[in-house]
Amino acid sequence: MRPTAFLCTVLLWSLMTLPANSTLGANLQKPNVVIIFADDLGYGDLGCFGNPTIRTPNLDRMAAEGQKWTQFYAAASVCTPSRAGLLTGRLPIRNGMCGQRRVLFPDSIGGLPADEITLAEALKAQGYATACVGKWHLGHLPQYLPTRNGFDSYFGIPYSNDMRAWDDRSKMAPLMRDEKVIEVPADQTTLTRRYTEEAVAFIRTNKDRPFFLYMPHTFPHVPLFRSERFAGKSLRGLYGDVVEELDWSVGEVLDALRQLKIDGRTMVAFTSDNGPWLIMKLNGGSAGLLREGKGCTYEGGMREPTVFWWPGRIPAGTVVTDLGSTMDLFTTAAKLAGAAVPDDRVIDGVDLSAALFGRGHSPRKTMFYYRNRELFAVRKGPYKAHFITQPAYGKGEKVAHDPPELYHLEHDPGEKFDVSKQKPDVVADLIREAELHKKTVKPVDSQLDRQPAKRAN
Amino acid sequence: MRPTAFLCTVLLWSLMTLPANSTLGANLQKPNVVIIFADDLGYGDLGCFGNPTIRTPNLDRMAAEGQKWTQFYAAASVCTPSRAGLLTGRLPIRNGMCGQRRVLFPDSIGGLPADEITLAEALKAQGYATACVGKWHLGHLPQYLPTRNGFDSYFGIPYSNDMRAWDDRSKMAPLMRDEKVIEVPADQTTLTRRYTEEAVAFIRTNKDRPFFLYMPHTFPHVPLFRSERFAGKSLRGLYGDVVEELDWSVGEVLDALRQLKIDGRTMVAFTSDNGPWLIMKLNGGSAGLLREGKGCTYEGGMREPTVFWWPGRIPAGTVVTDLGSTMDLFTTAAKLAGAAVPDDRVIDGVDLSAALFGRGHSPRKTMFYYRNRELFAVRKGPYKAHFITQPAYGKGEKVAHDPPELYHLEHDPGEKFDVSKQKPDVVADLIREAELHKKTVKPVDSQLDRQPAKRAN
Repeated sequence: MRPTAFLCTVLLWSLMTLPANSTLGANLQKPNVVIIFADDLGYGDLGCFGNPTIRTPNLDRMAAEGQKWTQFYAAASVCTPSRAGLLTGRLPIRNGMCGQRRVLFPDSIGGLPADEITLAEALKAQGYATACVGKWHLGHLPQYLPTRNGFDSYFGIPYSNDMRAWDDRSKMAPLMRDEKVIEVPADQTTLTRRYTEEAVAFIRTNKDRPFFLYMPHTFPHVPLFRSERFAGKSLRGLYGDVVEELDWSVGEVLDALRQLKIDGRTMVAFTSDNGPWLIMKLNGGSAGLLREGKGCTYEGGMREPTVFWWPGRIPAGTVVTDLGSTMDLFTTAAKLAGAAVPDDRVIDGVDLSAALFGRGHSPRKTMFYYRNRELFAVRKGPYKAHFITQPAYGKGEKVAHDPPELYHLEHDPGEKFDVSKQKPDVVADLIREAELHKKTVKPVDSQLDRQPAKRAN
Repeated sequence: MRPTAFLCTVLLWSLMTLPANSTLGANLQKPNVVIIFADDLGYGDLGCFGNPTIRTPNLDRMAAEGQKWTQFYAAASVCTPSRAGLLTGRLPIRNGMCGQRRVLFPDSIGGLPADEITLAEALKAQGYATACVGKWHLGHLPQYLPTRNGFDSYFGIPYSNDMRAWDDRSKMAPLMRDEKVIEVPADQTTLTRRYTEEAVAFIRTNKDRPFFLYMPHTFPHVPLFRSERFAGKSLRGLYGDVVEELDWSVGEVLDALRQLKIDGRTMVAFTSDNGPWLIMKLNGGSAGLLREGKGCTYEGGMREPTVFWWPGRIPAGTVVTDLGSTMDLFTTAAKLAGAAVPDDRVIDGVDLSAALFGRGHSPRKTMFYYRNRELFAVRKGPYKAHFITQPAYGKGEKVAHDPPELYHLEHDPGEKFDVSKQKPDVVADLIREAELHKKTVKPVDSQLDRQPAKRAN
């Protein structure tokens, strides 16, 4: 682009964004929102969550300057539904983003339905610059891409890094910019570094207006890759190298915010999409003291190591044991931005700001644990009833429980001691809660189970 | 004691201690040493080690201002041998403080042999004031009490809080001051509070001279008791209440040091005597991501949540992954105090100060895991070979392994993936290490298995 053309573009862009921005003064009140979303990171994989040999000084510092949430959940125990829940504030069962196929694959023709309102759309309408940097996994066909879902820009891989490219099945996942494939296969060794550079560049470009950066990392999902400078760095081996590069990335993002002096008006949330992929053995993570991992409705599958950071607003060095969910990021961020939370549909997210800012508790009292399209378990307060259980996928069959298994998760986070016999009233209450919940769910077709496209190869 | 007698005593004491103290100036160079030793606390029981519902703000702050060690071990997996190891810097196998009875009981006639040199004796010889506040468990007969082992004073229970008093079998463990029983049974509901008051009083009294405070808490060993103000406070239930009172106690000790402005010349170490007592179910703790618990030579039995604190000397907010052992507290503290480490016997402890002060690594490269008098496992570097395994006591039989089970503890802290087949060289090296070690152990009679005293009741 020649200098003149560049200037014109800048002017045009300024004019275009003015209406949405309303006034500059009002915009400065709207906080930036950064969501950093690891992939398959376990509850026990960070230093500040008890890992002995994975070193995460940046996340540990983020927790020391911010707030650790110890009972915070993903919306589902696998990638696609979990991401759909975060971005829409709705359980995936409500919008078809779950199914027998568990996640979207390169031959899938489904994706996030157009009438769903994403957090990016909600914040864009409030004048936010929006970017998605990382793994999407809510539909790789053009109509489902981030740029069709409220993101001004996109840089990343369209689905999991262990999947083959839909347009060249001889190669692994491609890298895309906006709606174009720019690298097949994506060079995964430099992905975390490049995501980080993209994220920091986006922050620098948008430092004077409110922005929403959604940064769903590709790793530590297998196959594991890390850049040269992290090779052999971690005592934990390859998996540790990969997590330590993610930790470095978090540090770069926070440092950029500090350097630009916009840390005082930026909320950063770090969490993971689901638990550790245990069948990957040492290439998978650890759920710490929690039971099971990815794909499973025991705590290890859905409870995530979560840290919030907003210097000056979120009290430093605090720990919150209230319930939270990635779906709550939708509602919390929308409210902080002054957006109305949609009232024409069920929104499962709640506003966590009272707990975040140390002036009250999270309003969340329940958690619904789905596996694919089936409600397996319900948590209410400290109690969780498992109506159905099944080990992480590939490891065992579905078992129905009547009465349900009942655990007091605050006494027994490892789900070791079934107290259903001692607490029939609690069991009855949780059964009621499940029934009430089911009445709020209207059947919709699964986007994941839609007939795969026919392929030549 | 009348005032005149008191003054005389003070004068006499001053004269007696002068030679050992040499000059006041030199004494101010000697750091105070405080060792806070929990009982049966698990690796996963503190907030800063990943517990979701036990709130430990004081220990978390201690870690943020100090140093967390993530691969730090007790000398044994049960009470008596573990304590003997800490206080002598020697594996309990070397001094008979282990045996088939596992620990000392109220009918035991054995105890720490008089020719053992305790850390209290070593530091007392350097002019330190010394106190033991808490559970002793190295012999309750007069000749074995803390006051015969280098401690100027003692306040606490002589063995575990689930044992009956040796002199009144109808009652639980007594409370002692120095060599006198002062309460039978000890009112356990106020023990943690009273220990704390004693500890703080000792610190205040001795603020102007070097002191050694050894504070082996009674809890969270069962039966669990806590003072009124902690009743029902923890989300984790009774066990959490008890740990949260311990956390409060740690805060009181650190606050006293800060208020007296002697924090800059006091090293505080917090750790536990062995892993969580898992068979106690919810009245026992959690080993986090580690395997098994108390009584067992898997990591959960002997790796402890450990924090060091010394403002101005130990770099704040650091994490050390080097190997350490409670036996190293002996050597490290002795050296800091200017005492010679005994050279007429094998000392297993090493000097951790290079790692503590951020100027090098721990010299410890090995760990020997005994169960009673038998060597079950050896760690060297990241690898651990289990020659014999047995679940926590009461849960299964001894199994010998040839080749030994081999785990890479830094990749696989949960001891899930036996790599003995892939690493025959490492197995051979660890077998050699075990043989070399065994040659350093001279047979001595077990103090624990000595014929119990005959009793009327």
